[in-house]
Amino acid sequence: MHTDAIAWTPARGVDLLDQTRLPDDFIRLEIDTIPVMVEAIQNLRVRGAPLIGIAGAMGLAASAHTAMTDGTLGNTEDEIGQWLRGAAEELAAARPTAVNLRWAVESVRDTALQAIRGSLPGGAAPTLVEVLRLEAQRLWDEDAQMCLSIGEAGAERVPKGARILTVCNTGMLATGGIGTALGVIRTANDLGKVEQVYACETRPLRQGARLTAWEMARYGIPGMVIVDGAAGTVMSQGRVDMVIAGADRIAMNGDSANKIGTYSLAVLADAHGLPFYIAAPRSTMDPGAASGADIPIEERDPDEIGFADGVGGYNPAFDVTPARLIAGIVTDAGVLEAPYEAAISRMFEGVPS
Amino acid sequence: MHTDAIAWTPARGVDLLDQTRLPDDFIRLEIDTIPVMVEAIQNLRVRGAPLIGIAGAMGLAASAHTAMTDGTLGNTEDEIGQWLRGAAEELAAARPTAVNLRWAVESVRDTALQAIRGSLPGGAAPTLVEVLRLEAQRLWDEDAQMCLSIGEAGAERVPKGARILTVCNTGMLATGGIGTALGVIRTANDLGKVEQVYACETRPLRQGARLTAWEMARYGIPGMVIVDGAAGTVMSQGRVDMVIAGADRIAMNGDSANKIGTYSLAVLADAHGLPFYIAAPRSTMDPGAASGADIPIEERDPDEIGFADGVGGYNPAFDVTPARLIAGIVTDAGVLEAPYEAAISRMFEGVPS
Repeated sequence: MHTDAIAWTPARGVDLLDQTRLPDDFIRLEIDTIPVMVEAIQNLRVRGAPLIGIAGAMGLAASAHTAMTDGTLGNTEDEIGQWLRGAAEELAAARPTAVNLRWAVESVRDTALQAIRGSLPGGAAPTLVEVLRLEAQRLWDEDAQMCLSIGEAGAERVPKGARILTVCNTGMLATGGIGTALGVIRTANDLGKVEQVYACETRPLRQGARLTAWEMARYGIPGMVIVDGAAGTVMSQGRVDMVIAGADRIAMNGDSANKIGTYSLAVLADAHGLPFYIAAPRSTMDPGAASGADIPIEERDPDEIGFADGVGGYNPAFDVTPARLIAGIVTDAGVLEAPYEAAISRMFEGVPS
Repeated sequence: MHTDAIAWTPARGVDLLDQTRLPDDFIRLEIDTIPVMVEAIQNLRVRGAPLIGIAGAMGLAASAHTAMTDGTLGNTEDEIGQWLRGAAEELAAARPTAVNLRWAVESVRDTALQAIRGSLPGGAAPTLVEVLRLEAQRLWDEDAQMCLSIGEAGAERVPKGARILTVCNTGMLATGGIGTALGVIRTANDLGKVEQVYACETRPLRQGARLTAWEMARYGIPGMVIVDGAAGTVMSQGRVDMVIAGADRIAMNGDSANKIGTYSLAVLADAHGLPFYIAAPRSTMDPGAASGADIPIEERDPDEIGFADGVGGYNPAFDVTPARLIAGIVTDAGVLEAPYEAAISRMFEGVPS
């Protein structure tokens, strides 16, 4: 059974595992147009901030290939540029909170536009498709490498015999590699340091119960699923040593947006004297966001919750954990500690914007 | 449509609304034996601490009637006493955390045993059945009255234009009357004081999304359902003025057991400077529990959560909120405040044990 979260199809399309169907069904989707990739991202068939960045970039490459084949891509630099900018914007806008998506899509777009500048007639379209594909692959490879670095850096903070609480899914199904927060747990578990992992179910879409549980079983991590409301209780029972979560966007001051419920876990960890860590690659950090107030929070259809007729619902997909509640941000460049502004700024030094 | 949570059937059985099927289906159950009532209580077809007390007492009366009819009740005081003690114990043990169930069942049992002492031959069985029925009805009526008193006392603490957060279901479907915490909300709403109610979904069995949402729609309460993980976020957004929850058992020092997730709400309310109230009748208070440590916490089948194969689950149905996080306990005798030990003890003064 082919269980990778993402792959290329032989026809240069994107091969996605439909995560909405896990763990019951393994359905693979072949995607080679923008609208279908947008649908997959918006409906969380592919999810996880780093992985939707990769999926966006790969989707752009696949869609450009399709558009070249069916003749809608155009031939001139101008026509192709117009197609690419429109396609990139459609993808980047599919979900607003994770910064990785826009960053990845715009990054491959700009490199490809650069590459076709001054192309010979007939050369621009194939060059564009090839560069998009190579750049998307490079982002994917980089993310896989960053996951390994995050795993190593984070595992050093995991004490022997650790009982760790986590939320949502931040593993292979959320990234291009072993994961962020779950990658730390997986690395620490491979080092024999993990006694127990409590995975919060993560309502409304149950990524913890469906996806993290599936990964824990697959990778031999001693896992236990709890409802989100039980997190405080397992902490108060002395069953937890540390909390670690991923992030969808990190502001320059360290405020971190992540799956709804994460903020509550940080408050609860603080109340119980437990360290609360965020794990994320540098692509999650947003130089355009000074603090959490600058991070847009996606509100999703309340029907995702499901409730009796005649009342309303409020369904924010993410929340923001203020930096003061974060013991450390585990990145591919090591574990950042407060004051985060200086530490995060250093990560962008020398990086072309 | 007959939507009361509980009623008598014409045949002296118990007529229960199957709450596991709400809000989609209105299925009524006719119950006239102990095992069927135990099943209904254990599988939460009837739930809510005060209501399972009433259902237990009514179930005992209905089952005694059945046992008299089919001849298994016996004729002598000894035989009947033995049947009644066994039946009461089966019912009382159906769920361990709510003290109301044991209290109600043992209360009607003892009154009935007293009533048949020295009965003439042939008189004990019909007397027992009649006394059980009257006593169960009396408990129900008392609970309805206590709900009104709780509603009045609590509504005084609700400011005009209040935004209130609550959890689980503590209304008509949880009691013999208008409810405890939701009864306070309903009373305050009838007084025009309530601007918005946030009902936490309450995983794993979704009593908030299914039952509280249904009651809010029915009684014109401006309700909105959120996932449990969003409670901290709505507090941090300044959308909440107070939190109010029910209780399944209150220890003498004020520590209160309630639906899993309640403790997290109390910690979050504390972190956001919001008052956290418990609302419960005196039958919820347990003179046998000095503190929360003395309250048994029911662990239910982790399959209620639902998750991928290959990992475990931990599914405590309740948690304990320590008294220090409780701004007040709204009772039928007014709002108790710290130190709770003295206030709760006063409620038992002059009450025969």
